[in-house]
Amino acid sequence: MHRYRSHTCGQLSAKNVGETVRLSGWVHRVRDHGGVLFVDLRDHYGITQVVVDPDSPAFKTAEAVRSEWVIRLDGNVKARTPETVNPNLSTGEIEIYAREIEVLAAAKDLPLPVFGEPDYPEDVRLRYRFLDLRRETLHANIVKRTKIISAMRRGMDAAGFAEYSTPILTASSPEGARDFLVPSRIHPGKFFALPQAPQQYKQLLMVAGFDRYFQIAPCFRDEDPRADRLPGEFYQLDLEMSFVTQEDVWETMTPVITSVFEQFAEGKPVTKDWPRIPYDVAIRKYGSDKPDLRNPIEMQAVTEHFAGSGFKVFARMIESDPKVEVWAIPAKTGGSRAFCDRMNGWAQSVGQPGLGYIFWRTENGALEGAGPLAKNIGPERTEAIRTQLGLAEGDAVFFVAGDPSKFYKFAGEARNRVGFDLNLVDTERYELCWIVDFPFYEWDEEEKKVEFAHNPFSMPQGGMEALTSQDPLTIKAYQYDAVCNGFEIASGSIRNQLPDIMVKAFEIAGLTKADVEERFGGMYRAFQYGAPPHGGCAFGIDRIVMLLCGAENLREITLFPMNQRAEDLLMGAPSAATTKQLRELHIRLNLPQQG
Amino acid sequence: MHRYRSHTCGQLSAKNVGETVRLSGWVHRVRDHGGVLFVDLRDHYGITQVVVDPDSPAFKTAEAVRSEWVIRLDGNVKARTPETVNPNLSTGEIEIYAREIEVLAAAKDLPLPVFGEPDYPEDVRLRYRFLDLRRETLHANIVKRTKIISAMRRGMDAAGFAEYSTPILTASSPEGARDFLVPSRIHPGKFFALPQAPQQYKQLLMVAGFDRYFQIAPCFRDEDPRADRLPGEFYQLDLEMSFVTQEDVWETMTPVITSVFEQFAEGKPVTKDWPRIPYDVAIRKYGSDKPDLRNPIEMQAVTEHFAGSGFKVFARMIESDPKVEVWAIPAKTGGSRAFCDRMNGWAQSVGQPGLGYIFWRTENGALEGAGPLAKNIGPERTEAIRTQLGLAEGDAVFFVAGDPSKFYKFAGEARNRVGFDLNLVDTERYELCWIVDFPFYEWDEEEKKVEFAHNPFSMPQGGMEALTSQDPLTIKAYQYDAVCNGFEIASGSIRNQLPDIMVKAFEIAGLTKADVEERFGGMYRAFQYGAPPHGGCAFGIDRIVMLLCGAENLREITLFPMNQRAEDLLMGAPSAATTKQLRELHIRLNLPQQG
Repeated sequence: MHRYRSHTCGQLSAKNVGETVRLSGWVHRVRDHGGVLFVDLRDHYGITQVVVDPDSPAFKTAEAVRSEWVIRLDGNVKARTPETVNPNLSTGEIEIYAREIEVLAAAKDLPLPVFGEPDYPEDVRLRYRFLDLRRETLHANIVKRTKIISAMRRGMDAAGFAEYSTPILTASSPEGARDFLVPSRIHPGKFFALPQAPQQYKQLLMVAGFDRYFQIAPCFRDEDPRADRLPGEFYQLDLEMSFVTQEDVWETMTPVITSVFEQFAEGKPVTKDWPRIPYDVAIRKYGSDKPDLRNPIEMQAVTEHFAGSGFKVFARMIESDPKVEVWAIPAKTGGSRAFCDRMNGWAQSVGQPGLGYIFWRTENGALEGAGPLAKNIGPERTEAIRTQLGLAEGDAVFFVAGDPSKFYKFAGEARNRVGFDLNLVDTERYELCWIVDFPFYEWDEEEKKVEFAHNPFSMPQGGMEALTSQDPLTIKAYQYDAVCNGFEIASGSIRNQLPDIMVKAFEIAGLTKADVEERFGGMYRAFQYGAPPHGGCAFGIDRIVMLLCGAENLREITLFPMNQRAEDLLMGAPSAATTKQLRELHIRLNLPQQG
Repeated sequence: MHRYRSHTCGQLSAKNVGETVRLSGWVHRVRDHGGVLFVDLRDHYGITQVVVDPDSPAFKTAEAVRSEWVIRLDGNVKARTPETVNPNLSTGEIEIYAREIEVLAAAKDLPLPVFGEPDYPEDVRLRYRFLDLRRETLHANIVKRTKIISAMRRGMDAAGFAEYSTPILTASSPEGARDFLVPSRIHPGKFFALPQAPQQYKQLLMVAGFDRYFQIAPCFRDEDPRADRLPGEFYQLDLEMSFVTQEDVWETMTPVITSVFEQFAEGKPVTKDWPRIPYDVAIRKYGSDKPDLRNPIEMQAVTEHFAGSGFKVFARMIESDPKVEVWAIPAKTGGSRAFCDRMNGWAQSVGQPGLGYIFWRTENGALEGAGPLAKNIGPERTEAIRTQLGLAEGDAVFFVAGDPSKFYKFAGEARNRVGFDLNLVDTERYELCWIVDFPFYEWDEEEKKVEFAHNPFSMPQGGMEALTSQDPLTIKAYQYDAVCNGFEIASGSIRNQLPDIMVKAFEIAGLTKADVEERFGGMYRAFQYGAPPHGGCAFGIDRIVMLLCGAENLREITLFPMNQRAEDLLMGAPSAATTKQLRELHIRLNLPQQG
């Protein structure tokens, strides 16, 4: 028999009854039922119930073992009596009668229990992460994470992509977030940088003639800790394709990602045919470029119904500025004064003057639009609004007025709040879409200049002609995001691979050709020597895993996370360096003044 | 039709004749055959021959294009005449008659040609790596590399392993090579380290209850450039298993790696049943713990034949020191004075006094051992040696005498030289084996103390009892290497997971419990809380890819390598940091004095 086990702790069933088996694992818990000991033995694969009779030669050892000790045991598989069968356990039909137990490793008193998974302070959990990871939910999340990534790899492989690893010790890129730097020992005073993303390398791969690249890519950003991003490193499913239009990217990736979601959605519906929603439309309908499409609410402009109306606040705004619009957030089943007042109160709590509304009720047998706005604009306009929005008795509508570019985010939040508060959102599904046609430039109010809205390496729609003839702020980019349930899960674009258009695009953003050469030298040089049209995107793996695990904290889906102060409490990183190390790296410390 | 292509450049064959197609790719070369232009169009998938007649509307553009321009073309597929079919090309049955060509991207004059693959200076190749990578051989090597790694992942997956990514920003480990350090912005004066290997994390994963871990793991060592190791980063197929003996590791990994080799060996034989050769035996038979088993030569001790013999040099050595042995290196077909003298000359050229030999020839119809040694020891002892080694007319044998621990490496080199010089080595095969039972400790002559021979985390054979009762230098470890064709391709062990044995093992090497706690705190702490027996190994991916590509330079199988001065010439790394960056990281430069 094998030194440690003939079966895993998740393997035995009724068909093994009568066999002599050997198992190894952790003591999950021990119960004493009238002198008979019940040991739940746990390993990576499951839990098996072990019975130790007082007359078993294993009894003495069984009495001594404690939670989380590692033991090996030999015994016989017996069927459980029908009333003790546990249908929640894969091994719930059987139990093992132990006749020999060997302690493979004892455990000290636990700083954090594994059984029962009680809440414990984060610091203890991170310091003893090896115990925390034994907890059933965290263990299952991590296993699911490995399976999701493996499914991504299979999907990419089937779609004709090959995985290329790009360098981790590379050059500092002045775009985007802050780099982690690595001092060079061989080149005094110089530094490598860890990649924020393999963007330049994957584009160089296309220039080098490789066709369909992907990578489960580690990315590094030295950002201040945020709730939705762990300090340090994170992973992307990064990909790039040559000789493609943006439609090719969408058509290639939609089935791959849909399939990944379907494999791990546990039966929840997943969008198969992702809608492609232009950025402008998303902003108008959902108040967000990351719309939660589980929420059925679509906003509509109702400006005309307020223009010249008796509701003077809106009427005057509309008259004084052609940019002003009034947007309606329809709220089916929200037609009570209590709900409308609650929404109004919420709007005030987030710094808005309030949230105008109308709700419909039956009064004396007739449908009536109620609330101050309805009174001000009168029944005809009220009815026109109701008809436009398709509302009925028991429904409500909220209004936001002003310059849409300033209020759309608030409108989007109000839409979310209405949807969730009224239970209009079906949370048991995955709604996926592409947001497309992002603006290429935006107005930087602080610097009073035109700036790239997103990725400066994207191709502007219309190419050189658009750059030379259009108002920059009207130019769209071949730039797109993928969104799931209100979260951005990917971002990508068709790249600007033509040096002339690249220089012109940067010029509009106030950068010279020399700036481009200095900042993106490797890539800019490459584009001089026959760069194919190419494009791609990168999916955020951590976010996708969180969605599929139903986890709300990144630490629940990450193996060895740092804490929010960017410390690895388990390994004790970061830590001091020796004088010799610093000398070899040609640096010395420059510590802040104490005081 | 698709914007860029209906087919790739490797796709069309006789069955597409008559179709109208669209292709995109790079102009590999243009030839002018009496006014008709022949364009070889290349993409990731292959090369297609394009014909442009002078009366084609595409002719004007075709005349303008140069090597490495990117073009899109439309045309008709025609069968080649039988005498122009190119069987070396997947598309060699057809050619395209172009009727429209669009330039997608021009190319400046090339600093390095792609067609023909002439030798070019390394610096130019690295600076223009995106052009170098278009070369057929390098392109094919990189594609093969991605496929080998993908095959490894499939094999590991099928063997029940899951891939876990371990942190890249982690703690400095004082064992082994020099760490790359990353200054922490949030914790002034502290540093992260890039992992030299995920050793501690993978062991922590086992303690955390995960069972079969693997990872295509990036590893980082700040070592001085060496011919066989690129500066910076390299990749390992890293793996670890719980509740296993070393036999389990071998039985699991032998078929996985054999299969990877078979998939890419292009028909060359691959060892299926890897011999397991104890370290001591490998040293005695092959003079190396990395034996090239394609070489059939096995050394043997022939000490007895020289003890008390007329060859006084050896006889006196044997008499004066019981450690002295004489090893024989049999050399079938090496039986000529010219060859024996050449070997003797080589030995002197590497600093040895010479290499004694006997060779056998027929003299006057009788077999005779020739050479000075044969004369000195006489025909009886000469014949005894011949019989022991199974040699015959036309064969030779070389002798090395002394303390085997001092001469075995030289003997191994002589074995290699004999094998290759006499063409005894079948280079068209992959010979794989496990080297097992490595010594746990070795004597550090410099420090005059017992030191760990290899991995201090290995379990000593015999456990605590061996540590407390045996001469440390006689203790073996559950430690093993995998070797292919004379190269170490993996190293691994069963780990020492019991804190008491760990402390004792380090004590013998002169380290206290406090040292262990300080240096390996995370892992040592974990071992207090129920650590399962576990073990594993790590395969060197770069070496395996080199073997399977037949490449002798790491830069021929690496996508974006640094040069031997640890610089990335393409991206310009390492580079200077800004004053702001240094201030944020709480460091300042400490540059060497100019002088």
